[in-house]
Amino acid sequence: MDVYITQPILLVAIVLVLGVVITRFSSKLGFPSLVLFIIIGILLNQVIYYDDVETTQLIGMIALIIILFEGGLQTNITAIKKVAVPAVLLATIGVLLTSLILGVFAYFILDLNLMTSMLLGAIVGSTDAAAVFAVFGSKNIKEKLSSTIEAESGTNDPMAVFLTVTIISIIEMPGETNVFLLILSFFWQMGIAVLVGIIIGRLAVYVINRIDLEASGLYPVLSLGFAMLSFGVAEVIGASGLLAVYIMALLMGNRPLTYKHSILRFNEGLAWMMQIIMFIMLGLLAFPDELFNYTIQGILMALILIFIARPIGVFLTLIASKYDFKEKVFISWAGLRGSVPIVLATYPLVSGIENGYLIFNVVFFIVIFSALLQGSTITPVARWLGFDEGETDTPAYSVELLALGQTQNDIYGIELPVQSAHENAKIKDLDLPPDILVIAIIRDEELITPNGETVMHSEDFIYVMMPRKLRERTEAYFSKVKEKENKGGKSKRTEPHADEEKT
Amino acid sequence: MDVYITQPILLVAIVLVLGVVITRFSSKLGFPSLVLFIIIGILLNQVIYYDDVETTQLIGMIALIIILFEGGLQTNITAIKKVAVPAVLLATIGVLLTSLILGVFAYFILDLNLMTSMLLGAIVGSTDAAAVFAVFGSKNIKEKLSSTIEAESGTNDPMAVFLTVTIISIIEMPGETNVFLLILSFFWQMGIAVLVGIIIGRLAVYVINRIDLEASGLYPVLSLGFAMLSFGVAEVIGASGLLAVYIMALLMGNRPLTYKHSILRFNEGLAWMMQIIMFIMLGLLAFPDELFNYTIQGILMALILIFIARPIGVFLTLIASKYDFKEKVFISWAGLRGSVPIVLATYPLVSGIENGYLIFNVVFFIVIFSALLQGSTITPVARWLGFDEGETDTPAYSVELLALGQTQNDIYGIELPVQSAHENAKIKDLDLPPDILVIAIIRDEELITPNGETVMHSEDFIYVMMPRKLRERTEAYFSKVKEKENKGGKSKRTEPHADEEKT
Repeated sequence: MDVYITQPILLVAIVLVLGVVITRFSSKLGFPSLVLFIIIGILLNQVIYYDDVETTQLIGMIALIIILFEGGLQTNITAIKKVAVPAVLLATIGVLLTSLILGVFAYFILDLNLMTSMLLGAIVGSTDAAAVFAVFGSKNIKEKLSSTIEAESGTNDPMAVFLTVTIISIIEMPGETNVFLLILSFFWQMGIAVLVGIIIGRLAVYVINRIDLEASGLYPVLSLGFAMLSFGVAEVIGASGLLAVYIMALLMGNRPLTYKHSILRFNEGLAWMMQIIMFIMLGLLAFPDELFNYTIQGILMALILIFIARPIGVFLTLIASKYDFKEKVFISWAGLRGSVPIVLATYPLVSGIENGYLIFNVVFFIVIFSALLQGSTITPVARWLGFDEGETDTPAYSVELLALGQTQNDIYGIELPVQSAHENAKIKDLDLPPDILVIAIIRDEELITPNGETVMHSEDFIYVMMPRKLRERTEAYFSKVKEKENKGGKSKRTEPHADEEKT
Repeated sequence: MDVYITQPILLVAIVLVLGVVITRFSSKLGFPSLVLFIIIGILLNQVIYYDDVETTQLIGMIALIIILFEGGLQTNITAIKKVAVPAVLLATIGVLLTSLILGVFAYFILDLNLMTSMLLGAIVGSTDAAAVFAVFGSKNIKEKLSSTIEAESGTNDPMAVFLTVTIISIIEMPGETNVFLLILSFFWQMGIAVLVGIIIGRLAVYVINRIDLEASGLYPVLSLGFAMLSFGVAEVIGASGLLAVYIMALLMGNRPLTYKHSILRFNEGLAWMMQIIMFIMLGLLAFPDELFNYTIQGILMALILIFIARPIGVFLTLIASKYDFKEKVFISWAGLRGSVPIVLATYPLVSGIENGYLIFNVVFFIVIFSALLQGSTITPVARWLGFDEGETDTPAYSVELLALGQTQNDIYGIELPVQSAHENAKIKDLDLPPDILVIAIIRDEELITPNGETVMHSEDFIYVMMPRKLRERTEAYFSKVKEKENKGGKSKRTEPHADEEKT
């Protein structure tokens, strides 16, 4: 077959295999895999010449849509609701403050005019929760904090996009700025995006649950189509596409959905694939010789962002919220920068803004430096501040979930506590309603198929099939500890497996 | 956001949603959905000008890789082995004969020289099993026949590619043809491809089962990377990439594999997505005005292929095989043409062969006509010939499988016969080994969570978790019918759900 077919396919193959294999090393070294993906891209730069900024931007935006869609699908809306106010404050005022502060520093330190400095600040305005949670891996972090970080980063990309696009349009058409119109535009972009997200999210749930397709493989494609539709429709009417995607994903992920697990598995895989491809393409765009010309400026700006701009932004924004000093320190430190800043850094290049390449290269340094410094220290910092709640015992078996579609049943994973009240109890003697079934027990890394005579032990990890509405009661039941030794016992409740797998 | 980002994303969104929704209509109308995908493409042609043949060819080839990979993963190798000899004969000699016969007719009917006529024959040489099975939907076809059709179509694409590429190179460099070298090249292409498929397939299984990645979403990406690697490596050393992909997929699909079901769900979705995108892009390439200039030639060639070339090819190839007349008629009729011919039809365009557009348009007609005529009649033909074995009772619930990774356990769906020997038996009284667990019963479209006291009924559809090695014995056990009414009973064994979902 001809070279122009074989070569790109072989290249993608190598990129995918290498990209996946390399995540093993980054998780061992304890920093987000994006650093290694970018390094692959920069190395490939030596053999492949690539400078198509527009294609990279398009692929980057599609990747962001899929990543946000997947993140929203897997987010537990009940946990998010509790921290909605501080998270939204962080995602708006917090981003604005951080960007502003970094912009002012950039103006005095880098050789840029005021608006270009502000543009740099805006581009690195949003955080990346996926990078944070990938580093935590199997560790449990206080739920209030993890929810805040997750909700903030799910919703702060639109603000960074808004600021970036607005500042670019001000630079391109100076003198035509009307602050009142800008503020109006902001509320339009965000408000309409929420509306579009809700409408298309509901439409998607309705259609997916009723269409009765000939093959299960069609449902994930349909869900992705609706996600991209949310983006497209929102953007066409001038609203924030990314916010619309996140809102529709939250809505879809928290309702009963036919073939939900096929949809999740498909989008998880796709999100990883797009991440690998996107970071490698972005790495390809950065020419090493140029990049290293900006080493000092890049590291300096990264340090200012991490130690000055982000903490001030977080502390000022949360001044009236119920977070103590330590919690604010942790939220500040967990503000890793990820894919969004690098994708946004292509905007000045495409628009031909003066000093666009300076911005692109400095942003590159900020993202990589932040991933390395904060990524590799976030776990010790969590432990040091006392927010580390121990390991999650993910069973060694790769048990994949059984989803029961439109039925009211689902399967949940529950871990029995150290001093379980059910130690040595036979399953048939447990006081369970008739429609609850223990379908598997993981004990000492072995899978046991239980029957009525099977005896339970402390620290067993069990999979239980049951009606969704009985979940809390059943979890409480299996988490009971022996009464007399109550204080020594540890009652840990484990989320269903689907949530654990999130990264 | 800028138009050059929003527009392509909105277009892809509309294409995906429309493409999926439209499959509802094609399955109701009873012909392969590819026809409607192509029609969407031709209609989009009115608003979008698109003539990038090379990109279409690349996307088409990637789509073929993913479709073959997915097909191979889901193919049961034990069923295939029984029909290996006739299937391989059909995939090689059968394709050669059919192509040759159609080529001769093309030479006399169309205004083409001999080699270009042969090229047309080669391009439409391979069949598409996916199109056949999509039409069957929930109907059961005699296993010997369905396995033959499946194995033939999984392995005959490489032959069509070989013939097409060879004839194009003969046209481009006339006079340099050495028949001996051609035959040698054929055996090299096929033999080395099988070797590459086996080596990379084993490597993939080994790596996937041992790598222990941080997120389950990475496994599907890794599997896809290996599939594309098989293609790329095989092509680089001059072997058939598509054959290598199919062989490695067969190997991977029939071994215990970590996160197998995540891998299957991801590739199923991706295969559908690529099919929709590919056919729509191919439809975009066909300009309606031009297309309809070839209506008569196209339909004539389609009729010759369906009623003369394919039957002669099948009957001659299977002359010494154990298929009776009716079976050969059915195999002839099930030779639907699908994606491969249309992708191959772009080859003469890219190479700039004389009359390339004539070939492209005639192939278009052949594929659409074959899909419409054979697709819509294959079910009545099967019934008429007596190969229709009734409906498969797919449960109304969208039960998705639980996969138990590297453990020896898996979940299988079994349907109890009409006059079950276990009618009214309590589960606890069944004579089952201790490591077998009935985890769900679907009865009258309702899902029941069983316990020891639950009573079994005839025609229950049950999900059983058990060690893989006990599968056949357990299926036989649950398929028992009441002894005295043995003749009236119907003992139907149902494949596990994963196989049923295949399309």
